[in-house]
Parts: sequence; structure tokens; C-alpha cells
Amino acid sequence: MVGVSLRFDISNTTAAGGRRAELNLPHGAVQTPVFMPVGTAATVKAVEQGVIEALGAQIILANTYHLYLRPGHELIARAGGVHRFMSWTRPMLTDSGGFQVFSLAKLRKITEDGVEFRSHLDGSKHFFSPEHSMAVQIALGADIMMAFDECVETPASWERTRDSMALTHRWAERSRAYWVEHRHETPWAREGTGIREQGIEEQSLLPPPSPLFPSLFGIVQGGMYRDLRKESAERLVEMDFPGYAIGGLAVGEPREVTREMIALTLEHLPKDKPRYVMGVGYPDEIEEYARMGVDMMDCVLPTRAGRHGLLFVREDPGDRASAVVRLNIKKQDNSEDQGPIDAGCGCMVCQRYSRAYLRHLFSSGEPLGATLNSVHNLAFYLETMTRVRASLASE
Amino acid sequence: MVGVSLRFDISNTTAAGGRRAELNLPHGAVQTPVFMPVGTAATVKAVEQGVIEALGAQIILANTYHLYLRPGHELIARAGGVHRFMSWTRPMLTDSGGFQVFSLAKLRKITEDGVEFRSHLDGSKHFFSPEHSMAVQIALGADIMMAFDECVETPASWERTRDSMALTHRWAERSRAYWVEHRHETPWAREGTGIREQGIEEQSLLPPPSPLFPSLFGIVQGGMYRDLRKESAERLVEMDFPGYAIGGLAVGEPREVTREMIALTLEHLPKDKPRYVMGVGYPDEIEEYARMGVDMMDCVLPTRAGRHGLLFVREDPGDRASAVVRLNIKKQDNSEDQGPIDAGCGCMVCQRYSRAYLRHLFSSGEPLGATLNSVHNLAFYLETMTRVRASLASE
Repeated sequence: MVGVSLRFDISNTTAAGGRRAELNLPHGAVQTPVFMPVGTAATVKAVEQGVIEALGAQIILANTYHLYLRPGHELIARAGGVHRFMSWTRPMLTDSGGFQVFSLAKLRKITEDGVEFRSHLDGSKHFFSPEHSMAVQIALGADIMMAFDECVETPASWERTRDSMALTHRWAERSRAYWVEHRHETPWAREGTGIREQGIEEQSLLPPPSPLFPSLFGIVQGGMYRDLRKESAERLVEMDFPGYAIGGLAVGEPREVTREMIALTLEHLPKDKPRYVMGVGYPDEIEEYARMGVDMMDCVLPTRAGRHGLLFVREDPGDRASAVVRLNIKKQDNSEDQGPIDAGCGCMVCQRYSRAYLRHLFSSGEPLGATLNSVHNLAFYLETMTRVRASLASE
Repeated sequence: MVGVSLRFDISNTTAAGGRRAELNLPHGAVQTPVFMPVGTAATVKAVEQGVIEALGAQIILANTYHLYLRPGHELIARAGGVHRFMSWTRPMLTDSGGFQVFSLAKLRKITEDGVEFRSHLDGSKHFFSPEHSMAVQIALGADIMMAFDECVETPASWERTRDSMALTHRWAERSRAYWVEHRHETPWAREGTGIREQGIEEQSLLPPPSPLFPSLFGIVQGGMYRDLRKESAERLVEMDFPGYAIGGLAVGEPREVTREMIALTLEHLPKDKPRYVMGVGYPDEIEEYARMGVDMMDCVLPTRAGRHGLLFVREDPGDRASAVVRLNIKKQDNSEDQGPIDAGCGCMVCQRYSRAYLRHLFSSGEPLGATLNSVHNLAFYLETMTRVRASLASE
């Protein structure tokens, strides 16, 4: 049954374990390793879908917690799923909502069954169980869904981390059982939805439903403990998921620890399935992890940093593999700089706009500033992965 | 001398006085009647320049008061002028700063010489005279500059309006004298600016400097008084400007009064020169005034209304000349509407996104909502003028 959810074809593996592959999903093929821009509320903040396509983004992420609260997963299902709702034709991944329930929501009460919480928007009371998270993700219609997991606070003791991991494993079993039962129920897989009856699909940019089911990925937890990470990976592999994520990293621990946890977890995950590190990282980190054998990553950093006026550039613009430098566009010394953000970058922002103009937009609070900064940072991340893929293919 | 500032070629005039013409300016030709999107701070709020180009905008407006305060006209001159600063290759018009000094700035003190005011941004003290307004506009490098005028409060007595108008006329003389002396000093007309020395112009999207000088338009004032409007128009025509604007309208008076003031002022303006009504209006108004013989208009309404979730649509989407209706995207009944804003609109927003999605973006405070709403409204205004031009050409 698992085989019909995705196809993962590895064309080359390097000595260091990095893999060049193609990941086939219901809404299309993704060349990996891949960076996934984050579109929290069914929009990559401040960037229009046509621009994201033109940047070459192959797959984006949407947040289950946010979309469940607003506009609601049932409304999105009636609209045909997130793809059709936001007019995004390429693959899309949803997280489980777990991370946001544990980081954004208020007054959480965790039981074996699930988590009761209050919305950060209006204080209303909600309950997420593994089954409910899966039902919401199926309604949203993601190509890849994530098992519902507990995210332990950090730092946490070994005992606390072990207990949380064990709960995550039980929830992974329940997520998987629900997914097996309901994965054919995504809005785009169904015949005769309200949308189709209204004849809207003729106008739609979306391709016809795919013969592939959506995938479910299990999430390895275990905090910063080597033995727990190993145990978590082994336990999830026993359950047999189409792909595996490594969660609970980049939560404040030193970067060496992040790398160590990724390296040892990868050893215990199957080599023929996609491996996804959630919520990382800086451009040099995503390059490093991709070369270690991570196939997928997502991070809000390019867009969030862009909105705060922080831009990623290469130290030597002519050498795209040189060190990553952060440029603070607010700084006075950009005010008369007629050059682009990064003279070696081919993005539409660097082709057209000067640092002086971008500083003016940012200083004036003009919305175009956040947009252009986000576009450049996304281009920088995507360019980095394009270069890494080329390198992994030839090594 | 005046003839070298612009060429205005009228190809047809209707019985009602509407004109189909081509206005040639240093940065290119403009088909009139034309609507000019407002780019206050050298950006049409929330919309990227490439999108504005794709929408077919032929000329945009920038605000002298705002750019003078931030980032400063001297900085912009060193960057090569507003065109190069914001990477906008088509014509651009600047207002005189007068309207903003009288509506936004604090603690104004008006003398024969000019206006002392405090910045609305930081309270700093500044002084604008006709000569200084012209110097700033020349530094910004507009294709069309406006004479510095006093904008009288509304309503104002006949005596108060007459005195203000007389001051505006003296300031128009001084503006014109300064322009005649300095109009060759725009950044793009000068040889050997710092920019050129740095070799930046090779990378630039901007065309080479034009043989045309920038134009100066006089502004007819006179409030809501027929005799004063006539006197103001006649007095300015004696001064001989390349074009004429009608100012001080759409400031709260009934729409019938606006129309009456425009109609009678047009009678007293030369038929062979461009005529510009400042700061109007709703889509049906710009159509009406264009058919009366107004060649140019600008208004913040399409972008400002867009940011507030108000969208312009045709009552009968299939009939592009049917009544204009305002759609409030916030309303609950849009939440599940999978249709576009306006089924007869060809803009990229109506081609791709649903009302349901746009309502979600707006309700969630997502920046893409303001962008897409602004793009549709601009497209609506520009489409209106395209249709009016076709009609004026064939009547």
C-alpha cells in the first residue's frame, strides 16, 4: 500500500551520503535535495504565487494549525483543498499542527488522547488528536502529510524526553492508521465535489487528480539524546512510512548538536526513502545537511528575515559557493549604494533594484520592501539548493 | 522655448470635447486620456514595478513632499533621479508638494515668500518656496512638474479664495521663472553625474536622455467660485505653460460641483495643450471627465481602497461599460465564493484567484491581500481608460 503514495528515484549518492533524487508526488515531481518555502496561511508571506513559481520553488509548506483556525479546513476542503484555494499547482506539504499547538497556542492540556488548547487568535477552545490532525490534513489536501507529534520543551530531561517520544510513537501509529483508512479522501482525489459540480475546474490551473495517494511521514523525536534518537528512528521505521522527518531540532541547541543529531538519525533511516529535517536553517546549514543526505528542508527564515530587512548574500558575489553573509538593509551605508543586494545573484530583485532603493522602502515602511527582500532571500535559498543538486549529481 | 518640453498630438476630438491624443515626454509617449497610478514614496504601494508595467500603466505620479522628507531629493538626484532610483523607465510626474504641506504637515506659516512647516514624520522644520519646490522636482527628475500652489481650506469664503488664488498666481510666475532657468538640470539630462562616472548606466534599464526638457504645468485654483476659476485659468494661460492642471477639487464638495468647476475651467484652457485634473476620482468619474476633455488624472483610490478591502467591479461583468459597483471583500458572503472578483476582468488577479481566497488573505492580515486587491483596482482603472480612449478615437 505504501508504494502508491510517492516514488523516490535516487540517481546518485555521494561518498558523504548526499543524494540526488526525484520525488514524485500527486501534484508533480520534485528534484531533491529541495528547500520548501513556508506558506503558513496558504500564502508565502508577501510573495505572489506567480513569483514563487518563477523563482523555481518546487514544493511549498502550509501550516495545519493556522489553516484549521482560519479560514478552517472544512471551508478549504469545500474550495477543493489548499492547492485550488490558493491556486498553487505544484506539490504542497502540511505539518501536523503539533509544533504550533506547542509553541503558539495557549493553555494546553495534554492527555494520551491528544491536546486541548486555546487559539492564539481568539482564545477559543480546540482539541487535536492524531486522528483529527490527519483529518484536517486530508481536508487540506497536502501531497505530504505529517504524523501528529508532541514537541517537548527545550531543554528537557532524558526521562521527560523519553516519555514524550513514546507518546509521539503511539500517536504516529494512530496517525498512520487513520491515514491508511482515509488517504483517498483528499478534495482533489474525490469525484463530484461541490467545486466540480459548479464547473469551476474548467477554469482552474490545477492538473487532474493524480493516481498517487498523499504520503504520510513519521517524525523522529528524542531531543538531544543519542540513544533516544536511535530508538525513535528504529521504532518509526518498523511502522513503515513513505518518508521520515527529523523533528525537534533547531530549537535553540548549538549548531554542532543539530548536526550530530541529524547525522546519527540519518544512519538509522532507510536509504531508499526521503528524509526531511523540519524547520532548518541558515543557507549554509541547508547546504551542509543536504550534502549529508537530507532530502527536504523548510524554514521561515528567508521570508521572516526579509521582512526584518536581513538579506543573504555571498561574501564573494562571483563565487556562489563562498561564505554566506547577512546584509542589514537598514544600515546607513546602504543609503547611497546603487549596486544590487548581491551582484552575483540572478533574481529579479538583484537584476532591477539597488540597495539604496531597498533601504528607502524598508526605512519608509513600504510593503514593497518586505516583498522584494523576501523574494531575494527565497531566490538565494533556492539557488543554493540548485547548486547543491548539480554538485551531488556529479560527485 | 515651451515647445521643447512636450509634444501633444490630438488625433480626434468628440462633440462633447473629449480628446484622443498622444503626449510625448522625455521618457516616452503616453496615450491620453490617461490615469496615473500614485507612487507616493517612489513606490505604488504594495505593487512591484514589473507588475505595474504589465498592467499597462504609462505614467505614474510621485509625491514631492514625501520624497523631499525621505529619503531626500539630493540623495535621489545622486542616484540619478526617481526613474533610476525606483527603476521605472516610463514617464513620471511629480506634484509640487503644496497639497501635502497643507494637508499633512504641521504648524504651517504662510508668507508671500513660501510656507514654513514641520514634518509629519519627525517634527523637523522646513521651508518650501516656489523656487525650492521646483529645485526639488528638478532633482527628482520628473517628466512633468507642477507649479507650487497654495491649497485653500474648504469651504472658504470668496475673499479668502481670491486672495489664495492671487498668491498661487504669483507663485506660478516664480515657479515658471525658476523652471525656465533650471529645467535642463534634471539628473537624467546632465552629463557626467556621479552615477555615470561609476558606469552604472550601462546596467540601467533607463533609456538615454531625451532631447525633451521636463514640462511645467500651472495649476488653476479658485475654489468653488465660477468667476475665480475663470480668472485663474485666464491668468495662467497668459503665463503660457506647457500644460494646465485643475487643482482644489474633490476636497469634499458635491460631485455636481466638481463636474461644473471642471467643465467651466476647461472652457478657458487652450484646446491644444494637455489638461490634468488632480486627485480624482472614482472609476465612473474619471470616465466622465475624460469624455469632457480632461487628458490626465491621478488618484490614490485604487490602491488605498484595495488596502482596505474595497474592490471595483462592473455590475454586469460581461458589459465593461455597465455601472461600477464596490465589493467589500471582508463580507461573509465572499468566504466561500470560488469565482473571481470580476468575471469580466482580464487582470492577473481575476485570472487566478477567488473571492474566497482574497477574503481569507484580507481577514488574516496577509500582505498579499493588499497587493492583489491593489493590482485588481489598478487594472480596473487602467482598463476603464483603455476603453474610453478607444471610444474617443472612434466617436
